[in-house]
Amino acid sequence: MVTFRVADLAPMDGYRLAAGLVVPRPIGWIGSVGDSGVFNLAPFSFFNVVGANPPCVVVSPLTRDGQPKDTLANVRQSGEFTHNVVTREVIEAVNATSATLDHDVDEFAHAGLTAVPSEMIAAPRVGEAKASFECVLVDIIAVGNGPMSGNLIIGEIKVFHVDDELLDGTRIDQRKLNAVGRMAGMDYTTTSDVFSIDRPA
Amino acid sequence: MVTFRVADLAPMDGYRLAAGLVVPRPIGWIGSVGDSGVFNLAPFSFFNVVGANPPCVVVSPLTRDGQPKDTLANVRQSGEFTHNVVTREVIEAVNATSATLDHDVDEFAHAGLTAVPSEMIAAPRVGEAKASFECVLVDIIAVGNGPMSGNLIIGEIKVFHVDDELLDGTRIDQRKLNAVGRMAGMDYTTTSDVFSIDRPA
Repeated sequence: MVTFRVADLAPMDGYRLAAGLVVPRPIGWIGSVGDSGVFNLAPFSFFNVVGANPPCVVVSPLTRDGQPKDTLANVRQSGEFTHNVVTREVIEAVNATSATLDHDVDEFAHAGLTAVPSEMIAAPRVGEAKASFECVLVDIIAVGNGPMSGNLIIGEIKVFHVDDELLDGTRIDQRKLNAVGRMAGMDYTTTSDVFSIDRPA
Repeated sequence: MVTFRVADLAPMDGYRLAAGLVVPRPIGWIGSVGDSGVFNLAPFSFFNVVGANPPCVVVSPLTRDGQPKDTLANVRQSGEFTHNVVTREVIEAVNATSATLDHDVDEFAHAGLTAVPSEMIAAPRVGEAKASFECVLVDIIAVGNGPMSGNLIIGEIKVFHVDDELLDGTRIDQRKLNAVGRMAGMDYTTTSDVFSIDRPA
């Protein structure tokens, strides 16, 4: 075993170790609206569910060069966002929306995606996604400070949109979903190699 | 598309939709110490990295029947925990530690695992894991309330322990890591089917 004390590491090394060892990560594909009305769409793999009463998600954009990303600024201002589920069929479009574009560029248009109006919020969802969540901001919490520090965006899920084909009641057919997870670097994993273990008694 | 308004759903249905659609999830395998000195170890798939300056993780146990799980109670009391990386080689042991056992049962012993002393904290790490993090509590944030509500445990990573075989500097060899992610129900996915996409210009 090699032991790394974080106090002796540069932030990029801590990032590589943490992000390289916490895998596979689900990808939040977050739609928001800027104050000028421009649509924004970007992927974040520091993302997960938190709690079910009410059901919430957390999205964690990194602070870069002391500036928040468009998503963080938009959600702070508007209090709303969509999450769009990332599957094998849309992963190239997801990657296209990870480009660093000017604040006034619409990533839906940039990636050739359809911005579908939401039911309860102003942020649009991705028409090409097999499922989307409409979320309302609960809180934003800074974790650390400076470049590469974290920001926890907690959003309450108000509406789920799900492709009929995936559903058996509220259960999701994982084979049909064909979700993709984030690995290190520019690597992704499919969810095609699945196995089951019986829950302990 | 089927539209579900969360206001019309039972918490279990919101849980099934959120946990079924946010996949694959990395698994936090959290070691802690109870106030009586008993070691505790349990897996949580509402888990991820948040930020890199300093590097932190979030672990989100659900509240069950209004009672916090042992992990939450222990971390609240001791302010410390380990995360142990979940790979294909240890997944049966991970599953064994997901059993609901009495507060005074040591899950390391129950699952036949070695509790290795940490460097900076009292919570032990799993000797059989290929990598472990030593974490110090930053904050615990309740998300919602009542049964199935969420709890965000934010922990700052102070020390990384990583198997030499996995390392090229601070980069992790994902093929050797052989991480496992959580899907819906009792399903898990391997990370053997990996593909790369070039980052956009």
